[in-house]
Amino acid sequence: MSGTIDHAALEAFIAATFEKLGVPGDDARMAATIMVASDLRGVDSHGVEMLPRKVGHMKLGLIDPRPEIKVAHETAATALLDGGNGLGEVVGKRGMEISIQKAKAAGAGFVTVRNSNHYGTAAYFAMMALEHDMIGLSMTNATPLLVPTFGRTAMLGTNPLSVAAPAGRERPFVLDMATSVVPSGKMAVYKHKGLSIPPGWAIDREEQPMNNPADVAAMLWNRTGGGLLPLGGVGEELGGHKGYGLALVVDILSGLLSGAAFGPFVNARKDGEPLPGNVGHLFGALAVDAFRPLEEFKQAMDDEIHILKESPKAEGHDRIYIHGEKEFELEEARRRNGIPLHPEVVSALRQMAADVGVPFTL
Amino acid sequence: MSGTIDHAALEAFIAATFEKLGVPGDDARMAATIMVASDLRGVDSHGVEMLPRKVGHMKLGLIDPRPEIKVAHETAATALLDGGNGLGEVVGKRGMEISIQKAKAAGAGFVTVRNSNHYGTAAYFAMMALEHDMIGLSMTNATPLLVPTFGRTAMLGTNPLSVAAPAGRERPFVLDMATSVVPSGKMAVYKHKGLSIPPGWAIDREEQPMNNPADVAAMLWNRTGGGLLPLGGVGEELGGHKGYGLALVVDILSGLLSGAAFGPFVNARKDGEPLPGNVGHLFGALAVDAFRPLEEFKQAMDDEIHILKESPKAEGHDRIYIHGEKEFELEEARRRNGIPLHPEVVSALRQMAADVGVPFTL
Repeated sequence: MSGTIDHAALEAFIAATFEKLGVPGDDARMAATIMVASDLRGVDSHGVEMLPRKVGHMKLGLIDPRPEIKVAHETAATALLDGGNGLGEVVGKRGMEISIQKAKAAGAGFVTVRNSNHYGTAAYFAMMALEHDMIGLSMTNATPLLVPTFGRTAMLGTNPLSVAAPAGRERPFVLDMATSVVPSGKMAVYKHKGLSIPPGWAIDREEQPMNNPADVAAMLWNRTGGGLLPLGGVGEELGGHKGYGLALVVDILSGLLSGAAFGPFVNARKDGEPLPGNVGHLFGALAVDAFRPLEEFKQAMDDEIHILKESPKAEGHDRIYIHGEKEFELEEARRRNGIPLHPEVVSALRQMAADVGVPFTL
Repeated sequence: MSGTIDHAALEAFIAATFEKLGVPGDDARMAATIMVASDLRGVDSHGVEMLPRKVGHMKLGLIDPRPEIKVAHETAATALLDGGNGLGEVVGKRGMEISIQKAKAAGAGFVTVRNSNHYGTAAYFAMMALEHDMIGLSMTNATPLLVPTFGRTAMLGTNPLSVAAPAGRERPFVLDMATSVVPSGKMAVYKHKGLSIPPGWAIDREEQPMNNPADVAAMLWNRTGGGLLPLGGVGEELGGHKGYGLALVVDILSGLLSGAAFGPFVNARKDGEPLPGNVGHLFGALAVDAFRPLEEFKQAMDDEIHILKESPKAEGHDRIYIHGEKEFELEEARRRNGIPLHPEVVSALRQMAADVGVPFTL
C-alpha cells in the first residue's frame, strides 16, 4: 500500500516501534514527533524513511534506547552535553532546551553535544527558540559525504545548519541548509522520479561530474572516493571554498568543540560494519529582548520580509521566497491531505514492522 | 610613485590622516592598524583603498571622528552597542572586546551593533578571539549589492561573515566570506588586471550575466538594478537560495537585532547624496574551555587540519587549503616585502593627502 498517510498515524507507528525496542514512552513519542515534523516539512529523507536504519542501529546496540544524557560541563551561558549515544532527536531536543534555558537567564545560550546520532532536520531544533521569542541556531556534523575544495574524497559531512528568527504578523524566517550544494537525500528524490541530476552536485573519484543519482547514492554508501560538492561547486571560481569552509565551521562547533567524532570519523565503520556514530551538534539561542525590544524587532522582520517579497522579480518568476515559507505551506497541505510515501518506503517499513514485531498500521 | 609600501609607513600615514580630521590619536592608530591588516592579508579593497571614501564621509559629517560609543543594553552574555556613527573599525573593535569580556565571565558573549559604518575585514574582529583561546564570530551588513533568488534588484549587502578558531601547532582556522559568490572588491581586481569576470558572478537588471568588471562596478555604484549573485548562483539548482539565506541571516543579526539600517536602507542615499550609513554588526565569542579542555580542542583542530590537508588531491592540484592559510602566507610576505598599491590608489591617496593637508609620505 502506498499513497498518503495521516501524520498522526505515522507518529503513532514510529512511537510504537521505538517503544517496542525499549525506548521510554515519552522519548519514543518525542522522537516520532520530530521525525514526522521532517516529513510534514518535505524533508522526506530525514523523516520516517530513516526509521528502518535507526531501528537497525538500535538492534545492533549502536543506539542506546535508554541513554544517560548528562551535562558534562557548564557555565552561565554554555554547556557540554553528553548524549549517551541516544537517538539524535531525543538528545538534540535536550540540547536545545538547555540553550533556551541559558538564554533566558543570560541572554545567550550555546550547547555543544557529543555521543549523539543523526538528529533529523536541523530546523526542528532552531525553531524551538521561536516560541520563546529567541533566535535559534542548530547544526550537526554527519557522515563524510562532502569533498573539500581541490580534493577528490569525501572528508566532511554535508553538515547542515539552521537559523530561525521570529517575525510579527509574518511567518518566521527559517533557513535550513546543507553546506553541500544539495543534501544526499536529493539522490533518492531524483532516483524515485527517474531523473538525472545536474552537473555541479557530485563528482566521482576521478573528479568527473556524475548524473545518475543511484550511482551517486551507491558511491556515497560505499565510501570509495568522490562525493558531493560543497556549496559553490568545484574549485574556487564560484565560491566552492566557502561551502567547504561552512562545512568545516559546523564540524568545529559540533564535533571538535564537543569531543564528538569529526571529519571522516563521524559514523565510522570497522571492517564494513558500523560503529557508534558519536555525532556532534551545536545549539544556540539568542533572546531577542536581550538586545532590542521584541516588538521593534518583529516589526523590522515584517518590514524586511515585505520589502524582499515585493522587490522586482526575475523573468519567469512571480514570487520571491523567504526561507521556510515553502516548508510552512507544504506542512499545511500535508497536515490536511496526509504525507505521501514512496512504495519502496512503505515496503521497507512493513518489513521492519514484521521484524520488530509491531503492528503495521499505515 | 607606485610599487610596494612598508606596512608601518602606511599605518602612520592613515593614522596621521585621521588625526588631522579630529580623530583622537588612539582611535586613529587603531583604525589604521585594522585597515592595514586588510592590506597585509590581501583584502586590498578593505584596506587603504577605502581611506579616501572614509575621509570624504568624515568631511561631510557622515562619520563622527569623536563618536560617543555606548552600551545601550546588556545582559550577562549579550550587549547592544550604539556606535555613535563612528569609524566602523573603532566601533567594531569595541564590540568584539565586549563579546570577549562577556565570554570570559559567562562562557559566551554576543554583541550586536547599530549606528556604525563599514568596519573593514570581518576576519579582523573574529581573530581577536584567538589570543583569548576563544572561537570568534564577526559579521556585518552592507550596502545593497546582492540580488535575492528569483529577484533582479540588489536588496541585501554582500553581508560577510567570519569565524576564527584556534589550533595547536597549526595556524588558526579563519573563514572570512562574503555571502555573495564574490565580494564587490573583485571587480577592481579584475579591472586592474584587464580581465573579464566569469559568468555566475553578476547579472544586470535584465538578468543577463555580465563580464566587464567596470560595468558591474558602475552598475553597483549607480544602484540601477541588477547586482551580485548570492553564493550558489542564479536560481535554486546550485543552491543560490542558500547564499541568499546566509545574507539574510547576517542582516537579521547585524541590522534587525540591533536596530541598525537593514536590507536596501544600509548606506542609503537621498537625492543621490549619501546619508549616515547606520551599518549593523554582530560579534560573538565562545570560550573553548567553557565547553571542553583547551588542549584537547587544539589537538583535535590540528588533527582535523592534517587529515584534510593530507587527503587525496584533485587533478592539477597539489594542495588542499585550510581557511586563512593563504592570507597568513600573504601577510608574512607583505610584512617582509611591503604592500603593493596600484598606481590609481597611490594617486588617489596623494590627492586626498593634499586635500586634508597631511604630508604624503608614501
